[in-house]
Amino acid sequence: MALLQFWFDFASTYSYPAAMRIEPLARARRVPVGWKPFLLGPIFAEQGWTDSPFNLHPAKGRYMWRDLARTCERIGLELKAPVRFPQRSVLAARVACLAEGEPWCGEYVRAVFRANFAEQRDISEEAVIGECLGRAGADPALVARAQFAENRGRLRGNTEAAQRLGIFGAPSFTVGDELFWGNDRLEEALEWAAR
Amino acid sequence: MALLQFWFDFASTYSYPAAMRIEPLARARRVPVGWKPFLLGPIFAEQGWTDSPFNLHPAKGRYMWRDLARTCERIGLELKAPVRFPQRSVLAARVACLAEGEPWCGEYVRAVFRANFAEQRDISEEAVIGECLGRAGADPALVARAQFAENRGRLRGNTEAAQRLGIFGAPSFTVGDELFWGNDRLEEALEWAAR
Repeated sequence: MALLQFWFDFASTYSYPAAMRIEPLARARRVPVGWKPFLLGPIFAEQGWTDSPFNLHPAKGRYMWRDLARTCERIGLELKAPVRFPQRSVLAARVACLAEGEPWCGEYVRAVFRANFAEQRDISEEAVIGECLGRAGADPALVARAQFAENRGRLRGNTEAAQRLGIFGAPSFTVGDELFWGNDRLEEALEWAAR
Repeated sequence: MALLQFWFDFASTYSYPAAMRIEPLARARRVPVGWKPFLLGPIFAEQGWTDSPFNLHPAKGRYMWRDLARTCERIGLELKAPVRFPQRSVLAARVACLAEGEPWCGEYVRAVFRANFAEQRDISEEAVIGECLGRAGADPALVARAQFAENRGRLRGNTEAAQRLGIFGAPSFTVGDELFWGNDRLEEALEWAAR
């Protein structure tokens, strides 16, 4: 089984259902998953975008919220309009860099996505991220450690690695050089890894 | 069963697998299909784009061709790089406006998509479109009639109707006001129509 890398941004709407679905689906196919937090902001900025394309293009944005609502309903996932879109996801992503390889990583990632898309919390707040760590059974004090220079470099490194892989949106999945984009491609990416 | 409107542009890459798949899937669910040719060009132009977003954003374009190849392979559909991307689809779309409601409409639409995406033909040429009409059992002389002012207005009307429905890409599917975007959403749109 090849490793499937899961590239996500906590601000990204379709990363939410992907993050909630990935672990049981991967386990059923015995595919190992690598959690790869990254930031879409610098990638969008390279294309000259200063905001989410869903805000820049209102018709696309209106459609996305409706489609996301249908998608969440189909899989029984709660969805409430976030307090801000997109949210500032850098703090949550830095903490996720510390979580890589920890047994509580998946729980933490899901707690943050729920806080953003189901609980209308502001995930740029240290207290909210500390609470998510606590829910995952991890030490809330990690919030402070996530801001150390070394760890900030890890998140930058992930974003640069995403760009090198040709990633332009989230969620994305990679198996070696093979790239899959979107919550819709999760199953196909897992099949690819299990070939 | 509600009517499912299928909005497509002959230049649109993901409209190709959608057009090839829609009839048997709709028949199995007894959902009636309306073929709605339209032009993406004016809709993209409103957003300030003078070319396909797949050309404007190279990373997205590279991904799309790879993803389309995988999609076509999965469903056993031939795919060869078109002679030009995007092709000028206005003539083919005008002829499709004449085909609406005719028993050969689906055959004609599929013949044009095959010409573009499997046979490396230039679908802006009258001879190519005439051949597609012939393959569908229709009169190749319709190519000339498609250029009459009245019929040109029909295509413009379709594009304006698409915009009013919030359509921003192709393929799209509508059931009443409910909008679905992308080849990936064909099954979900059919389920919606069959509720």
